[in-house]
Amino acid sequence: MTGSELQDLLDRVRRGELDPATAASRILTALRAAPFEDLGFARVDTHRELRQGFPEVILGIGKTPSQIAAIAREIVAAGQALLVTRADTEAYHAVRARVPDVTYHAAARAITLAQGDVPAGKGTILIACAGTSDLPIAEEAAVTAELMGNRVDRLYDVGVAGLHRLLSEQARLRSARAIVVVAGMEGALPSVVAGLVEVPVIAVPTSVGYGASFGGVAALLGMLNSCANGVSVVNIDNGFGGACVASVINHL
Amino acid sequence: MTGSELQDLLDRVRRGELDPATAASRILTALRAAPFEDLGFARVDTHRELRQGFPEVILGIGKTPSQIAAIAREIVAAGQALLVTRADTEAYHAVRARVPDVTYHAAARAITLAQGDVPAGKGTILIACAGTSDLPIAEEAAVTAELMGNRVDRLYDVGVAGLHRLLSEQARLRSARAIVVVAGMEGALPSVVAGLVEVPVIAVPTSVGYGASFGGVAALLGMLNSCANGVSVVNIDNGFGGACVASVINHL
Amino acid sequence: MTGSELQDLLDRVRRGELDPATAASRILTALRAAPFEDLGFARVDTHRELRQGFPEVILGIGKTPSQIAAIAREIVAAGQALLVTRADTEAYHAVRARVPDVTYHAAARAITLAQGDVPAGKGTILIACAGTSDLPIAEEAAVTAELMGNRVDRLYDVGVAGLHRLLSEQARLRSARAIVVVAGMEGALPSVVAGLVEVPVIAVPTSVGYGASFGGVAALLGMLNSCANGVSVVNIDNGFGGACVASVINHL
Amino acid sequence: MTGSELQDLLDRVRRGELDPATAASRILTALRAAPFEDLGFARVDTHRELRQGFPEVILGIGKTPSQIAAIAREIVAAGQALLVTRADTEAYHAVRARVPDVTYHAAARAITLAQGDVPAGKGTILIACAGTSDLPIAEEAAVTAELMGNRVDRLYDVGVAGLHRLLSEQARLRSARAIVVVAGMEGALPSVVAGLVEVPVIAVPTSVGYGASFGGVAALLGMLNSCANGVSVVNIDNGFGGACVASVINHL
Amino acid sequence: MTGSELQDLLDRVRRGELDPATAASRILTALRAAPFEDLGFARVDTHRELRQGFPEVILGIGKTPSQIAAIAREIVAAGQALLVTRADTEAYHAVRARVPDVTYHAAARAITLAQGDVPAGKGTILIACAGTSDLPIAEEAAVTAELMGNRVDRLYDVGVAGLHRLLSEQARLRSARAIVVVAGMEGALPSVVAGLVEVPVIAVPTSVGYGASFGGVAALLGMLNSCANGVSVVNIDNGFGGACVASVINHL
Amino acid sequence: MTGSELQDLLDRVRRGELDPATAASRILTALRAAPFEDLGFARVDTHRELRQGFPEVILGIGKTPSQIAAIAREIVAAGQALLVTRADTEAYHAVRARVPDVTYHAAARAITLAQGDVPAGKGTILIACAGTSDLPIAEEAAVTAELMGNRVDRLYDVGVAGLHRLLSEQARLRSARAIVVVAGMEGALPSVVAGLVEVPVIAVPTSVGYGASFGGVAALLGMLNSCANGVSVVNIDNGFGGACVASVINHL
Amino acid sequence: MTGSELQDLLDRVRRGELDPATAASRILTALRAAPFEDLGFARVDTHRELRQGFPEVILGIGKTPSQIAAIAREIVAAGQALLVTRADTEAYHAVRARVPDVTYHAAARAITLAQGDVPAGKGTILIACAGTSDLPIAEEAAVTAELMGNRVDRLYDVGVAGLHRLLSEQARLRSARAIVVVAGMEGALPSVVAGLVEVPVIAVPTSVGYGASFGGVAALLGMLNSCANGVSVVNIDNGFGGACVASVINHL
Amino acid sequence: MTGSELQDLLDRVRRGELDPATAASRILTALRAAPFEDLGFARVDTHRELRQGFPEVILGIGKTPSQIAAIAREIVAAGQALLVTRADTEAYHAVRARVPDVTYHAAARAITLAQGDVPAGKGTILIACAGTSDLPIAEEAAVTAELMGNRVDRLYDVGVAGLHRLLSEQARLRSARAIVVVAGMEGALPSVVAGLVEVPVIAVPTSVGYGASFGGVAALLGMLNSCANGVSVVNIDNGFGGACVASVINHL
Repeated sequence: MTGSELQDLLDRVRRGELDPATAASRILTALRAAPFEDLGFARVDTHRELRQGFPEVILGIGKTPSQIAAIAREIVAAGQALLVTRADTEAYHAVRARVPDVTYHAAARAITLAQGDVPAGKGTILIACAGTSDLPIAEEAAVTAELMGNRVDRLYDVGVAGLHRLLSEQARLRSARAIVVVAGMEGALPSVVAGLVEVPVIAVPTSVGYGASFGGVAALLGMLNSCANGVSVVNIDNGFGGACVASVINHL
Repeated sequence: MTGSELQDLLDRVRRGELDPATAASRILTALRAAPFEDLGFARVDTHRELRQGFPEVILGIGKTPSQIAAIAREIVAAGQALLVTRADTEAYHAVRARVPDVTYHAAARAITLAQGDVPAGKGTILIACAGTSDLPIAEEAAVTAELMGNRVDRLYDVGVAGLHRLLSEQARLRSARAIVVVAGMEGALPSVVAGLVEVPVIAVPTSVGYGASFGGVAALLGMLNSCANGVSVVNIDNGFGGACVASVINHL
Repeated sequence: MTGSELQDLLDRVRRGELDPATAASRILTALRAAPFEDLGFARVDTHRELRQGFPEVILGIGKTPSQIAAIAREIVAAGQALLVTRADTEAYHAVRARVPDVTYHAAARAITLAQGDVPAGKGTILIACAGTSDLPIAEEAAVTAELMGNRVDRLYDVGVAGLHRLLSEQARLRSARAIVVVAGMEGALPSVVAGLVEVPVIAVPTSVGYGASFGGVAALLGMLNSCANGVSVVNIDNGFGGACVASVINHL
Repeated sequence: MTGSELQDLLDRVRRGELDPATAASRILTALRAAPFEDLGFARVDTHRELRQGFPEVILGIGKTPSQIAAIAREIVAAGQALLVTRADTEAYHAVRARVPDVTYHAAARAITLAQGDVPAGKGTILIACAGTSDLPIAEEAAVTAELMGNRVDRLYDVGVAGLHRLLSEQARLRSARAIVVVAGMEGALPSVVAGLVEVPVIAVPTSVGYGASFGGVAALLGMLNSCANGVSVVNIDNGFGGACVASVINHL
Repeated sequence: MTGSELQDLLDRVRRGELDPATAASRILTALRAAPFEDLGFARVDTHRELRQGFPEVILGIGKTPSQIAAIAREIVAAGQALLVTRADTEAYHAVRARVPDVTYHAAARAITLAQGDVPAGKGTILIACAGTSDLPIAEEAAVTAELMGNRVDRLYDVGVAGLHRLLSEQARLRSARAIVVVAGMEGALPSVVAGLVEVPVIAVPTSVGYGASFGGVAALLGMLNSCANGVSVVNIDNGFGGACVASVINHL
Repeated sequence: MTGSELQDLLDRVRRGELDPATAASRILTALRAAPFEDLGFARVDTHRELRQGFPEVILGIGKTPSQIAAIAREIVAAGQALLVTRADTEAYHAVRARVPDVTYHAAARAITLAQGDVPAGKGTILIACAGTSDLPIAEEAAVTAELMGNRVDRLYDVGVAGLHRLLSEQARLRSARAIVVVAGMEGALPSVVAGLVEVPVIAVPTSVGYGASFGGVAALLGMLNSCANGVSVVNIDNGFGGACVASVINHL
Repeated sequence: MTGSELQDLLDRVRRGELDPATAASRILTALRAAPFEDLGFARVDTHRELRQGFPEVILGIGKTPSQIAAIAREIVAAGQALLVTRADTEAYHAVRARVPDVTYHAAARAITLAQGDVPAGKGTILIACAGTSDLPIAEEAAVTAELMGNRVDRLYDVGVAGLHRLLSEQARLRSARAIVVVAGMEGALPSVVAGLVEVPVIAVPTSVGYGASFGGVAALLGMLNSCANGVSVVNIDNGFGGACVASVINHL
Repeated sequence: MTGSELQDLLDRVRRGELDPATAASRILTALRAAPFEDLGFARVDTHRELRQGFPEVILGIGKTPSQIAAIAREIVAAGQALLVTRADTEAYHAVRARVPDVTYHAAARAITLAQGDVPAGKGTILIACAGTSDLPIAEEAAVTAELMGNRVDRLYDVGVAGLHRLLSEQARLRSARAIVVVAGMEGALPSVVAGLVEVPVIAVPTSVGYGASFGGVAALLGMLNSCANGVSVVNIDNGFGGACVASVINHL
């Protein structure tokens, strides 16, 4: 209930068109209004698009296929874009049974359905990754960014051990409005990229590696300790989160 | 052996009704009495109900189905309520073969049999969880609390990223006598809940998440460092333990 | 603004005693009302006593003595009880210069001023500690619990390596309504205590120890993994937090 | 050496105005040109302003006061803005002896000198912090953001345990172009803030806390695991880094 | 080659019974003698029994069944007792194919063959464990201790949450010459046991537990920080190692 | 109260020499008898010598000098041997003011007073250390072992990087009844020593080292993972604990 | 483009044989030349052999079999030697389908194809391992070193618990030009080896062990803290990396 | 005693020039000869120069100034080069009082005295560091390398955030025979350097940084996970160790 709606309501009370008890009830109801659908196991936040510019996204981990499918149907029924991350093929089939038009992105492990009015971002988001093994996370970022209305430029396998592969692409780096850098192992790529550009670099550590990579901790720490300015970091393997931050920036 | 039983025994010695050696033996025996059944691989603590208000509970992890079933039969034979946590279906079938009336709660992964006189708790225990993926732990808490004689109110999927879902339920929060808050990822929900109520909040971190959630460590640390008063914490994924604490409080 | 206040306001609008614009302004103002004092560096939550039963408490760590003193004066001016934890003598002198009547508890490193109507707890809170070195944290808990209106029973130096010291005090353990158990090193005392009683045990790990105690981590993990029921845990060295939980329980 | 400079050079070779050996030498020299001043212990990157929009910043940790002063003089001599972070008063005096006009920000532990043409950011950067103890890091962020040409709005002591303090300031939150959220302990504030706004939230964990806060690790993990979208994270206590990211975004 | 053998050799050189070159060769050979069998992938230390009182033991982890079987055959061929720990049934079948008389202890996951002259220990080794889930490790300890010539007394499921189960067995505890205490979760049992006896207590932490037990780390830290004297610790799940230490002590 | 004392008491009841109420009171009193002195901040366990062969030992960490002195006086007054570990000179002066005859061992940071009948150990305890920097912990072990009635042989600076220093002392190694091996950094010495002897090796990791020694964690892990048999481990820097275990073994 | 090529180009410009625009274009092109093949998911660094003496090596982890096969074909097509590490049999079959002549080393989990001119190393690389379980990593090192043109001497199962097995092989140790020491558990072998030789020792920790070996962390820390000189360390289980370092040294 | 010496001795026995008992004694003595000086608290390994090419080096941490001075005098008296690392000025004064000619390197915190015949290394060792704050560790490496007979080239403050500073020095990088790369924070410099050269890169992580650098752990992990070949790693802040490895390589 906005201030003008409230003013209008009270004017009607003043004019006797509305009795005070009804008005009080409406005001209290508005304040209590629950902008979500309660499925018992989930409260689908159908107003998130209004509040934050993009509908609720379903993280596939820890949910059963049927729970994922039920939430997905609720979101699609509200006319909103659908994104399920970390979805295996079983989840995909469960969703498709209820929402036939969805697409499955195998490399990104994501289910999407583009609908509704997603505003276009202003520039390009560049998704860079250090090695081929980082590709699933990079693709999760790319699919997310595209669904959120952004142009995406993919620059893969440009790790720091062969710097010339990166240095030869400085023009692409500099033409982006935000850069998502996906890297495992020592996670040094964001530092090097951020030293070459003037736009925000969102670093996504991956669990790629073995031994003392500790499931991505080495890359995460490397990125948090970056000596380059303009680097911020999201959770390990959180390609979705990296793309979110870039998309928010690209829509400013 | 209580003080009055001892006094009575000694009076009988004094009156010559009991010879001293027999009396000495009885006293020593009483002191040594073993209130448990020894199965070799387990010593079933059948007096725990007397001592602590609820019978011994079987943690399913690390025990074979046949061990679980043998202990379960012992508890049921003593006329006590049965609770097996972290039980898979194999354990359930082994138990049911020996104790036919048990119930299996799939979402909670628990086996129960309600019997004996379980005293009723005074108020309601509210079980809140942050997301759908926390549901198995929340259900373990709910099943435990109910078996221990408490009324349970379930409030699921009210994580802090969509605060309105929680704020719209303040009345339910405030009507509980103890609140069990189950959350993974950043584990911020207990802090927010505890800032809204005046009753004890028992925080249960879950292993829900990925990457730097480190199997629930992020949520655990968040809860231990809560800046809100009245929050205490149990082990990661320990829905049972959270409900236990709440039930002890609700029975005071 | 409560529902009846709102009804009253709207009745006055209806009767023409209040014009709609003024009423709208009052309603919006009430919704925005800030129940805190803004000192620039701090927003003193002077309504916390109403909301949670005890005023805001000042954690002395990371604040300058003059910041502590300014916040303290604000709380005392509001007629509320004052508690500053982790306060060194420098902080004490700064506070005393502004609030002359405060008391400094050297062992507990706490500054207090009892005023206002603190409701009395129903039973006794027992504070047990494992060794002499745990005393500062145990005293922080004791001072906190007393200021919050609870009777406190202190039972110190009853660690598990000399069990007879604990077993000889079972009567005191059982007569408490809540027990705060403070222990460093291996942190085994809460498990043993909880096996002997039927009331909630709040475990407070301390940083007492050396080497692989890792500043209290060993004790913390021991307590989180307690095989006894009814144990919940607060942060390392958080005597204040342990007492808070016990006091909330004791006031139910 | 730009493409047009190269073309010009080659034209002169063609016209015989420049002999090929000299031209070859100039081209190679240009490619090798070192855009930094070599002080032996430091290579001051005086071209960073051109490349990244802001001059090199001096991190005070691990450098002697005289090293800091020497680097500072070099930057100021190049006509660029000066920022030294983590500077104690000893470093300040050493710098002031060589660069008399500098300002020392005690709360932020920063030395600054505003000079050169720093372009103005487009909107406001809001710096929020959870508690008074987080103030030094929040001020480091604020001083940094201001020196980099941004309008700054400070919103301090709005931790999640007293949500009304934050909810009453939603208008200020929503009017910012980027928000830096500084918090220690459980680090939950960024999640709650990000759930309320549509702009990028840069989370800065602080080492405020004790025990299981592990010097800021609890807050860091909480932020990395944020269930809210649009949150990215920088290093513990890195107020400077948080402001950098916000400033880069605000200058897009 | 002992001193007297060397003297004898040199006497024979002196008497002309042995030429110097031969003698030099023999001395050098003796010094170089390799008391092991080289299988390429393993050097079986067949003299360990002479040097340390018990033959080399095969740790089953990380070896292929055929490697285990080949080493086992070598040990048995040397007339020595065989012990393979952490052996699954596949390893057992591979060994039995080459050494038909071996026994498989399923609970302990161990393969044994008793042969050779194993000296008897002087007293009894008591193996205590905290819970039923610790049984595999306790049995590994028991099987090892028995094979090494010790009388073994098993005392299982005597965790500290039901202290009476332990206190009723003090006579058995005190009649042992060394006690191996096996416990997971909070690992408090060794502290309590060591407070009751005067003999060495060897603590074996187990990986039993979940969440913040961190695969036995909680138990390990608890044991290392034991406030009781006379407790030493071996690796997590190292029932074999615990029994070894106890056996060495029992053979002094 | 022993069984024969109880029999005697009951005989006197039977003979009418003692009335039952008095007898009951005595029996209950005996069961409740507290074998400790309660100083308020400490319960001095004066019966520990009877129960465990050596009086209570005072750990100096976390206690004030006056607390240490008060406990020390109580122990000495009971005619028992005094050992204070981790005592700085301030603690020493406080103790000496109350117990004039004590000795301060500066290298070991220990205060001792030998009195009472300490039984002699059977053999020699060898204390080996890897480097000169490990000397304080090795001396703590040596002083402890000597006070507990053991002959001690010191073998210092025999780290594995110069193996000949150790191999040349095999006779001394083999003549000991128990060996305490003190080592920091990589902590490899216990493995090598245990490969050469047939007696128990108690490994004491020290915090000597820097960087990735993590305050002794590297040494601790090395020792816990020792591939040699007969090695058990105590806490980092716990020279006292290592000597305790060795002394218990040496007194069997 | 080398300096002489540049000089030549400019001479031709001077002589009028080449117009300046064409020359400028060629120079800029050369600087931008991408010495890699872009497969979309990978940029095969086909010039690495020129730059670093050995072609790009494929780490099998995190790549699909078809990705591995495609990269392998690219490398082989460029006439270079092929090495795929951490390759399972599925990857092997995929590669063999495209590059029929490859060899699969099952123990080392490596795919190789020797071709091209690999320069021979100057001396021998000795690969030592502590136990049979370390064999897969030792073999990965051996296969790598051989493919890189080095003579390899294998010395397996010479752990420190049976020192004589190592000491009897000092001649082989001393005849190597670089030694790769592979060890899990406590990782003490490199320290002992480095104390016996004068050549570089490259330590490779393995994840062999259990419990507190923490997947190789114990061995890694032991090696990093080695008190012997001349030891450097690579990642856990990185046999390939250890051999690389040794080969670079052996080719100096 | 070499084989030829032994042959000679036995020839003399054979010829009757030496009686067997004397010969036996000499042989046994030779085998037992202790090539070290025993100072009680230290066994100075005066034969290390023979065995490993450089005398024993004194690590200053954890030793008293007088212990350091005593060991230093012993080494100098043996005519060997002296190196004390991690020496503060107090240690320097203690050493200078006994060995007047020593030099103190303040930046490197090292005491040196060059004497004896140190063989010259074959090429140059380049010491690179990422930032000014890494200088103490880089200087420790440089002083060590120089004392060990190597030419040293210092290349400081060439961190990856300003890549041009490094790329402009490729000629110096390529002219070295071994490169020691010292870096804190994210530790990315070794990966980038190793991608540019064909010689061994020894990475030295430093504790430079704050927050999630965790005292050098971030840099250490980054280096261990380097995706570039030819990189090996030493302990955090171990400039000495890095130089040792480089010197061993440079002397091959």
